[in-house]
Amino acid sequence: MQKTIVMMSEIEKQLKIVSDMTEKRAKEFLNNEDGDIKYVYDAMQYSFFAGGKRIRPFLVLEFCRMFGGNMKIAQDFAVAIEMVHTYSLIHDDLPCMDNDDYRRGKLTNHKVFGDAVATLAGDALLTYAFEVIAGSGADNAQIAEAVLKLANGAGAQGMIGGQIIDMRAEKEKIGYETLLKLHSKKTGALICLSAELGCIAAGACDENREKALQYARNIGLCFQIIDDILDVTGDFETLGKKTGSDTENSKTTFLSFMSVEDATAYAEKLTNDAISAIDGLNRCENLIGLAKFLLTRKK
Amino acid sequence: MQKTIVMMSEIEKQLKIVSDMTEKRAKEFLNNEDGDIKYVYDAMQYSFFAGGKRIRPFLVLEFCRMFGGNMKIAQDFAVAIEMVHTYSLIHDDLPCMDNDDYRRGKLTNHKVFGDAVATLAGDALLTYAFEVIAGSGADNAQIAEAVLKLANGAGAQGMIGGQIIDMRAEKEKIGYETLLKLHSKKTGALICLSAELGCIAAGACDENREKALQYARNIGLCFQIIDDILDVTGDFETLGKKTGSDTENSKTTFLSFMSVEDATAYAEKLTNDAISAIDGLNRCENLIGLAKFLLTRKK
Repeated sequence: MQKTIVMMSEIEKQLKIVSDMTEKRAKEFLNNEDGDIKYVYDAMQYSFFAGGKRIRPFLVLEFCRMFGGNMKIAQDFAVAIEMVHTYSLIHDDLPCMDNDDYRRGKLTNHKVFGDAVATLAGDALLTYAFEVIAGSGADNAQIAEAVLKLANGAGAQGMIGGQIIDMRAEKEKIGYETLLKLHSKKTGALICLSAELGCIAAGACDENREKALQYARNIGLCFQIIDDILDVTGDFETLGKKTGSDTENSKTTFLSFMSVEDATAYAEKLTNDAISAIDGLNRCENLIGLAKFLLTRKK
Repeated sequence: MQKTIVMMSEIEKQLKIVSDMTEKRAKEFLNNEDGDIKYVYDAMQYSFFAGGKRIRPFLVLEFCRMFGGNMKIAQDFAVAIEMVHTYSLIHDDLPCMDNDDYRRGKLTNHKVFGDAVATLAGDALLTYAFEVIAGSGADNAQIAEAVLKLANGAGAQGMIGGQIIDMRAEKEKIGYETLLKLHSKKTGALICLSAELGCIAAGACDENREKALQYARNIGLCFQIIDDILDVTGDFETLGKKTGSDTENSKTTFLSFMSVEDATAYAEKLTNDAISAIDGLNRCENLIGLAKFLLTRKK
């Protein structure tokens, strides 16, 4: 037990380092001297620097480190993926979407800046992500591949497609297969993409990429199951957002198909599968730590 | 006079060819077999295929042709820029932005698909644009440059920045310099970008690029002045959208600073400057035709 606690603090320390590094670099991009367009930059900064676990940047950086890549390029890729993640949260929270007032214990973007600026700030962050990748100093071949993967993972076939299925899940009962598809797109796509961007930055071989993807697919699904469990068992103070909303909205979640106990056991299995995929590779400790952390997180 | 009429029909014929070509290629991208995410593709298609002059694709293709580039690559770049343009219109029309019910004589996207799907369809088109460029088969160097330019022109420093200033212009009086800045960003950025993408597809030299940009800057500003004039002198039936909205909203436009006659004279000067920038280059007829067409358009 003691060992687990120590491990958790180590990974939290590592996540903090990544978060600080990502924020420092992002500040350089989100800096703006032009008063005429200041308001949209303020809105972009507000949500980008509103905290968050920075799991996606962590994955980019760790997989790049693991496969011996250029960390400076990975750092820019990490900022890019976090920009895409942040945009997706801003748009998700809009009144026409989930209509959420709080995110990570802070008012959501549109509650502070209004719906129009929040929409534009999301658009701008998404757009900026591609600019950051294209300007990262990576080889042109790496840039072309990273852009292709990012657009594919974030677009209608990926994250946005997941959001579309999610909207249906709020209105009608969906089957288990569709629920899996929903999550493989809505959160899974960006998590897999993060691992892939790390691999691209490192020029990893196909075999290693496949390991990275297998790890990412498993922690991505685990992440969502824990999310569903926390919506039932968590509280606002710890989570920084409203709980019980899935039940309130009669939304189809993993708990529509299994008990909290079975869902927890499934999440444990996924975590073990994730660890098995990368176990034995050099410098895999942090990624193993992350998988365990995501399983036992309380927020 | 007879000559002008013939010229107008020739350019309209050319625009139609580009429009057909762009739509044909876009159909291949916007095709979707997956019923679960069909709804967002329907929304993307609805707005992409809702007509429009296809000026931006025309610029990409004509500058590429002019400088002897690969037209297949230019065609994909043209689809990409039109996707970005379409996304910007969908988001602009949203209730939280301009709250427009009609665009090109058809119901706006959110009136048909709802605000949430319209937001996502816009997001997806923006994202897709980068996927189309990255998958265009251009050299990796061309892809990296095109992505960088597209993101920069469409982002907070470009089109979105223009939108932010535009929102201010609806609430408060802005000065003439700020109005010029607004338009150089809001419409100018994407029009310049279209010319640049054509140059990138053709590997044009710096001197030719500068000519293309000078042409684009001039027709971009002319386009906006004519827009402001048509909002006063046009009618719904011809324009396919509400007129008189600038006056109704006490919005700062070119007509806040000059008469319709002076604005028309200024638009003529800009058209002449645009033509001078490219006159004498091989195969410049269509671009000269476009400049004249944009000056005399009634919608």
